[in-house]
Amino acid sequence: MSVIVVGTMAFDAIETPFGKSDKIIGGSATYVAYAASNFVQPIQQISIVGNDFPAEELEHLQQLGVATEGVEIVPDKKSFFWSGRYHMDMNTRDTLVTDLNVLADFNPQVPDSYQGAEFLMLGNLMPRLQKSVIEQLKTRPKLIVLDTMNFWMESAMDDLKEVLTMVDVLMVNDSEARQLSGEFSLVKAAKKIMGMGPRFLIIKKGEHGALLFNENNVFFAPALPLEEVFDPTGAGDTFAGGFIGHLAKTKDVSFENMKTAIIVGSAMASFCVEKFGCQRLKEVTKEEIETRLNEFVELVNFDIELA
Amino acid sequence: MSVIVVGTMAFDAIETPFGKSDKIIGGSATYVAYAASNFVQPIQQISIVGNDFPAEELEHLQQLGVATEGVEIVPDKKSFFWSGRYHMDMNTRDTLVTDLNVLADFNPQVPDSYQGAEFLMLGNLMPRLQKSVIEQLKTRPKLIVLDTMNFWMESAMDDLKEVLTMVDVLMVNDSEARQLSGEFSLVKAAKKIMGMGPRFLIIKKGEHGALLFNENNVFFAPALPLEEVFDPTGAGDTFAGGFIGHLAKTKDVSFENMKTAIIVGSAMASFCVEKFGCQRLKEVTKEEIETRLNEFVELVNFDIELA
Repeated sequence: MSVIVVGTMAFDAIETPFGKSDKIIGGSATYVAYAASNFVQPIQQISIVGNDFPAEELEHLQQLGVATEGVEIVPDKKSFFWSGRYHMDMNTRDTLVTDLNVLADFNPQVPDSYQGAEFLMLGNLMPRLQKSVIEQLKTRPKLIVLDTMNFWMESAMDDLKEVLTMVDVLMVNDSEARQLSGEFSLVKAAKKIMGMGPRFLIIKKGEHGALLFNENNVFFAPALPLEEVFDPTGAGDTFAGGFIGHLAKTKDVSFENMKTAIIVGSAMASFCVEKFGCQRLKEVTKEEIETRLNEFVELVNFDIELA
Repeated sequence: MSVIVVGTMAFDAIETPFGKSDKIIGGSATYVAYAASNFVQPIQQISIVGNDFPAEELEHLQQLGVATEGVEIVPDKKSFFWSGRYHMDMNTRDTLVTDLNVLADFNPQVPDSYQGAEFLMLGNLMPRLQKSVIEQLKTRPKLIVLDTMNFWMESAMDDLKEVLTMVDVLMVNDSEARQLSGEFSLVKAAKKIMGMGPRFLIIKKGEHGALLFNENNVFFAPALPLEEVFDPTGAGDTFAGGFIGHLAKTKDVSFENMKTAIIVGSAMASFCVEKFGCQRLKEVTKEEIETRLNEFVELVNFDIELA
């Protein structure tokens, strides 16, 4: 069962109240691939990098079952670079630097070898590029998941609304759901947003967990209470990777199975925040993932006798 | 199985973005009693009111199994009055008026008929009064639950720390847990606070649910996602009432049963916020409670196959 992942592969420099990273590997598609490859192969990556992106990183991903034929390498330009500083609450951050570099010319091309993929994860990108990928696919995937952000709601709302009519699952955070819908209540926001196209909506609330909506059903997945959130960068992308990885592994896109997929995504995100960048995701073992999933079961499991 | 409830019985006037109430019945002990009496009788109320508190309200509570012998009626004074205005997020509010009135002289007395109670719910009050009630009891209850707030951390921290050594369960919200412990991480905060006395700690996060800590165990209960939060006043007290009501009904104070009790508390709180004051709690039926508990099961229930 193959999964196409579209998004950035890039460099980040991160400051948190606990420390400061060098220029390290980042990018939405990188996090998705590291998370999803624990559950399913191949992951078929579509991205763009510059001449500064380390060949070893691409090789490492390949070893994990990530195809990189769709990763364009631009020889005379640099990779996308983002730098940010997190506030004490680790939920808000200031962007210090955004160097688009190769991203300014990104025009994603789906390689022939990727055709027929049954799952498509559209990481946060210009909505018009997300749409272009969908249109290049000769067979519509079983499930298309789209991530986006407030920036596109402000700068490309018409394009975003168009691509929303073409996808099955939308992932946004709570403030983005409010912005997109104009509703403060997340329940009302969910109804409006599902009216825009996606049958499923996931609202991410960071340390407060995530909500899954579908028709009149709602499911809530908590975040694992952690002693320390070291670096939240990539947690949302890692969540997306665990989510689509579990769905692709089980080949089941029902609401019931999406509940489990959200728990898997939450478990993967709980690893991501333990170290800078994708470091922790590179180290995590199958046994650690099992143990963490068990912790989620313990966290929410209760007995009740109903009449 | 009897439950002693100590707290205020009072008047509130509430403004929210959705409307404005007249002077209506409020007070921590009132909400606790309305919620808990759905599960167990008698509730043995200890409070103080003025000559303006309606006799019908006390009679209504009595009909629900709430003993009011411990409610002192001061003939020449008025009841405690609080008025506040909620912000758009419904999580923050400004206090407009606080008239202590009878509360300034409150010196809670445990009637002889209340002795032997197995559960004690100490609603938010001056810590020294909470302590005085514990000391008046000839037999220590099976479980003592204490609610408090930031105001006492600022004005009576020494008294608060003393009463904390005497109780089993502490309930605070997330910002209060941070203030009491000096830790930002709620997991670290919980460890420090449990070191101050209570074996169990409940951290309430409003619309983001609640966490229960005990030794190295943690349980998370979500709040029900609602289309509209009409008035959050009393939601925390209602949660406490559902919690202790379930424990007293089942006579089981294990961590496992506290998980269920927190779900019951969350369900009761989800009713409370649907109308002004305790209106909705007065109307709620056993069938509605069952249905709502089922919604909580649906909200967090998932299947996972672990190796």
